[in-house]
Formats: sequence, structure tokens, C-alpha cells
Amino acid sequence: MLNESVNAEQKLVVGMVLFPGLTLLDLIGPLTVLAYHSTIYLVSSSLKPVTSDQGAQLVPNCDYDGCPVNLDILFIPGGDGVVDAMVDPALLSFVKTRGQNAGYVTSVCTGALILAAAGLLEGFDATTHWAWHDVLKTFGANPVAKRVVIDRNRVTGGGVTAGIDFGLSLLAHLRGELAAQTRQLMIEYDPNPPFESGSPEKAEPKVIELAEKLLNAAAERQIVIQRQNRARP
Amino acid sequence: MLNESVNAEQKLVVGMVLFPGLTLLDLIGPLTVLAYHSTIYLVSSSLKPVTSDQGAQLVPNCDYDGCPVNLDILFIPGGDGVVDAMVDPALLSFVKTRGQNAGYVTSVCTGALILAAAGLLEGFDATTHWAWHDVLKTFGANPVAKRVVIDRNRVTGGGVTAGIDFGLSLLAHLRGELAAQTRQLMIEYDPNPPFESGSPEKAEPKVIELAEKLLNAAAERQIVIQRQNRARP
Repeated sequence: MLNESVNAEQKLVVGMVLFPGLTLLDLIGPLTVLAYHSTIYLVSSSLKPVTSDQGAQLVPNCDYDGCPVNLDILFIPGGDGVVDAMVDPALLSFVKTRGQNAGYVTSVCTGALILAAAGLLEGFDATTHWAWHDVLKTFGANPVAKRVVIDRNRVTGGGVTAGIDFGLSLLAHLRGELAAQTRQLMIEYDPNPPFESGSPEKAEPKVIELAEKLLNAAAERQIVIQRQNRARP
Repeated sequence: MLNESVNAEQKLVVGMVLFPGLTLLDLIGPLTVLAYHSTIYLVSSSLKPVTSDQGAQLVPNCDYDGCPVNLDILFIPGGDGVVDAMVDPALLSFVKTRGQNAGYVTSVCTGALILAAAGLLEGFDATTHWAWHDVLKTFGANPVAKRVVIDRNRVTGGGVTAGIDFGLSLLAHLRGELAAQTRQLMIEYDPNPPFESGSPEKAEPKVIELAEKLLNAAAERQIVIQRQNRARP
């Protein structure tokens, strides 16, 4: 039987962080799932449009100061811009303060690395994009190879499209199965991938090699780990 | 064996149409899959930010006149705004002229209804969001209950999240399986939906009832069909 705790009157207060070079699909998957049940704050350092890692620009609707202090959900997407975002003091300060006060501290894809850099994943199980799992360890988190990981009030999703599974799992957790199943039907999430290549366990070696190269993952992992080693007391 | 026709030098020229009330996920799924291989024109009536049906605003990068005449791919997303977009003469004129010249004429979700209203699906097999299949008939298209339908140079996807399957299928068609499999791995598209409720064949009756109500589908279908009957010679 379905849990009937749907209550559209009680909107969740959700802060989703925008930064240059974010991956829009990381954000738009969860946003599409959660929006009907939420008031969404798209937060950035200013109200200027933010350019994603594929060029399309999204418009924030508040800046750091304008975002409510007590969020039900703090959400961080990933993307090419994460490597720079992880050393942006204003962004990290915002994530840290809102994260300490949030009901749920969440991310999709490499957004987990920003949470980790803000000190919010130490001692927590978490997931991220498959190419970045090991980096979570550098920050004291425990990487778990699952599409969605819930550990106390930390909820993290895997790479990019995992945001849809993440959003539905989080919605079921907070608003019940009827809400989540209805949203899943509305967005016709009955996936039928054309290939069996969506994870490194399934993809052919030359697909993995090309993906690692295009993601520039090896070089970026090295930058992040070196910075973190230097920052350690 | 993988088809190795990846050629990142030959960018596809893609026009994606923005209109008020579009569903961002319809657009951002395909955009994320295609962008690395494409020059993307986000086209609207002006360069002002366009508000989606969930409130988030995306910034166009060209207007109708600024969009290339010969597109490799013309793409139309769906959304709550489709009912109005279907009777917007400037938008329909743009879709019609670019569609007649495009290599591929494509849509996701109820974007198919805009293609149909522009006369571009008559006599073609096509798909759309599950709640709107019958409406395609009103415009002389043949609705097919598949997630992605390719009929000659018309490529249509089902509701919202079908845009990811659509994008990968289209990319495989145009740039080969290695390109599509690599992109699928990069976006970690190894879906694991939390429920079996993503299609009306799988969802419980009360989930379907609630989804139809929240989509306002019955009322909007009626408006579209009445308008089309009036417009008929």
C-alpha cells in the first residue's frame, strides 16, 4: 500500500546552489522531481545568469544573503566547475553555514566534493560520479558505490542522471510513496537506455578510457588531492 | 563492435526552441547528451530569460531571426506552455520554416504537439507524453507507444525523462555507438528507479488518477482538440 503523506500545502524549503561550470542536468533532474512540493531558491553569489559547463545559462533567484537560513534541503550539483568551486571561500562559507542548519544536506554527482570540501561529509557514507569516488576519502568521507546513498541526514546521488533517482528517493522519504510514484509517472521515468554502458562495470574498456579522457578526470582528481594535502594541518 | 564514427570536429548545428512554460528537463536531457558534439542555439522570440513551467529561467542565445536557416537538428521540448505555444503564430512559423530545412525534426514530451500543430508530423509515426498520445491523431500523426520513435527524419521522444533515451539514440544514429556509449557513461546513465511507476502500464490506478489531475491533462487535451476542430477547413 502507498503511504499517503502527500501534503502539497507544506512546501519544502529547498536551496540549490549555482556556480559557474555546473552541470545543469545534475540540478534539473532533482528540481523537476521536487519543485511541486517545494519553494526552490536557486542561490548564487549574485543574481547574474550562471553559465553551465555546457554553455546554457540559468538565472538565480537569490544571492547567498537572500537565501533562508533554515533550509529543509540544501542541494549542490556537480560539474566541470567543481574544482574551482571547492576553493571558493564565499561559496564554501555559504554551504557550511546553511549545511549546519539544513534538515537534509544533499548533492548529485561531483557536488559531493563541494560538500566534502566544506567539511560536511566527514565520517559519512556518500556517493559521487563514478570517476571521483576515491577523492571522497581524501576528505574523510566513505565512498559507497550506489546510485543514491542516505546516511542520517546526508543524501548523495551518483553521476548526473542519478539525480532523478536521488530526487525520487528523497521525495519518497519526505513526502511519501504516493507523491514519489506520481511524480515518477508524470515525468514518465520508465528508462530504457539504448546501451548497457552507463557504469564502468558495464561499459567496454575503450568507452571507459574515452570517458575518463573527455571528463579530464585524472588531471582534476590530482589537482584536488594536491590542494587538500597542502591544506591539511 | 563499436562504430567509430565519432568526429568531434564536425559539430552538429542544433536549434532548441524555448517558450514560456517549457519543461526544462525535456530540454536539458537531450542538450547534455548532444552538446559535446554540437553547436547549440537556444532560440526564443527574444533574448530575455524564458521562465519554465517550474519557475527556473533559462537564457536564450539567439532569437528566431538569429537562428541558422539550415539546422542539422530542430528540437522542441514540451511543458505546460505547449497549449499556448501551439497557437503562437511567430513560433509556429519559425518551427515550420526551420523544420522544412532541418536534417532532423525532433521533440521530447508534448513538444511533439507543437511539431504537429506546425504540420510537421502529418503521416509520420511519433510519440509524446503518455497522457497525450491520442491528441497526435487529431493532427494526422500516428501515435506509437515507444520511448523513442524514429520515422524517416522525424525523431520523437516520450515524456520528460525519455529525452535522455532520445538524445542517446539520436547521437548513436548521427555520431555512432562509441560516441553514444561514452556519453552514456559520462552521465552515468545506469538508471535505477525507486518505483515501478514510470508508465501507465505499471503504475497503480490511484497514481495514474493523481498524475492526470496534476498534469491537468484532460482539460488541456480538450482545449487543443476543440481548437484543432475549429481550425479545420
